[in-house]
Amino acid sequence: MDRIESVKNSKVKQWRKLHTKKEREATGTYIIEGLHLVEEALKTKDIIKDLILCEDITMPTHWNVDGLNIILVTNEIMKAISDTEAPQGVAAICEFQNQHTPNTWKKILLVDSVQDPGNLGTIIRTADAAGIDGVILGEGTVDHYNSKVIRSSQGSIFHLPIVKGNLLEKVMDYKEQQIPIYGTSLQNGISYNEVKSTEQFCLIIGNEGSGVNADLLEKTDKNLFIPIYGGAESLNVAIATGILLYHLRG
Amino acid sequence: MDRIESVKNSKVKQWRKLHTKKEREATGTYIIEGLHLVEEALKTKDIIKDLILCEDITMPTHWNVDGLNIILVTNEIMKAISDTEAPQGVAAICEFQNQHTPNTWKKILLVDSVQDPGNLGTIIRTADAAGIDGVILGEGTVDHYNSKVIRSSQGSIFHLPIVKGNLLEKVMDYKEQQIPIYGTSLQNGISYNEVKSTEQFCLIIGNEGSGVNADLLEKTDKNLFIPIYGGAESLNVAIATGILLYHLRG
Repeated sequence: MDRIESVKNSKVKQWRKLHTKKEREATGTYIIEGLHLVEEALKTKDIIKDLILCEDITMPTHWNVDGLNIILVTNEIMKAISDTEAPQGVAAICEFQNQHTPNTWKKILLVDSVQDPGNLGTIIRTADAAGIDGVILGEGTVDHYNSKVIRSSQGSIFHLPIVKGNLLEKVMDYKEQQIPIYGTSLQNGISYNEVKSTEQFCLIIGNEGSGVNADLLEKTDKNLFIPIYGGAESLNVAIATGILLYHLRG
Repeated sequence: MDRIESVKNSKVKQWRKLHTKKEREATGTYIIEGLHLVEEALKTKDIIKDLILCEDITMPTHWNVDGLNIILVTNEIMKAISDTEAPQGVAAICEFQNQHTPNTWKKILLVDSVQDPGNLGTIIRTADAAGIDGVILGEGTVDHYNSKVIRSSQGSIFHLPIVKGNLLEKVMDYKEQQIPIYGTSLQNGISYNEVKSTEQFCLIIGNEGSGVNADLLEKTDKNLFIPIYGGAESLNVAIATGILLYHLRG
């Protein structure tokens, strides 16, 4: 068990940098914090590289940390590496999970340029609940290893395969496999109610303001909209995703 | 057109207090800010008591502000009364809307102890989109005139009738009118798929952690759950509300 006492320690400096996408991509690691998230990550233990604990924290007795690299730190260090206002004294450095096989997925969610971290995290949590096989994030979508995304995902980031990719190429791949492709669009779409639930589908959701890119909408089998019956201008993108995924999977 | 230059002006002091529920309830007014929200409020103009503008702001030309009490303020005052990091230079003091008639509603959402302002705002926006007649907030639910709730509602707070009330009494009222009452519960419930869409319904959603109060669940006709097919522990309460409302209204 290592122990670090100075915020100027090189490891601490590197952990702090993990709040930037650049450092995460350079190292293939990301930081998570809080009891609930670390407990969820422990269920897939091989993703945890370092478990970081405040000296004055007693670990829950049911945690199995055999073989894990544990590092004790001061409260000051925990505060420095945390981006929450009241750190819970537990953090972990995790490794990217890269061994996914999107070509075998049959229920797929494609995310085109969703920018709010809270929205993306909630979308991932919802896709996990709906039993989707995997999520593909297109360019322009917020990084799923962003700590706000991880927090809103409530741990689903560890359960659900997520990859980044070129959405246009992925759509063509799934089309070849004869998986129905559904875009989402307020213009020239059909009501989602007109589509029946299916064993296989690929749903594309889009940016909070501008929706799914027009290039993608041209390649879909159908573009769906959710009717607005009242005075609201639109639905939040995570809410729309929940309604569509649960409707499509039936 | 009035003009205020000092943050110590008594009106400014009173506006700042509107960020507390106590002051809102004492005065029957609340504060909103930002171009989009003020524009939405203008559509129901009789709710706006004072329109507050920064001196250096040019009002959108399509705004109809005839007969409105407009007050010009400095940037410093706008910052003082705002709770956002980058105020847009436009705010308004609005009056509570109290002339609602919940006993005539046929599609009703009851909210039991939802505590996160972002969740409540998104729930209100979703209920508005789904064409619900009105929302009843039980004790323990965050105040809907809280500025974060208003922001997440994206203006739906102005379209959709919202009242506070005793949920147990309301359930008994709607039962008497033979409106089907649906609770939400992971235990002893049935899957929402087993219920068909209906012209009339009263749906009860609950607290983020503990769900709907047991006393209420005893009085319902049926308690619904949304199946979790993947690794997530639960759905976000606003997501669950979206899935259920759109399913029930069909």
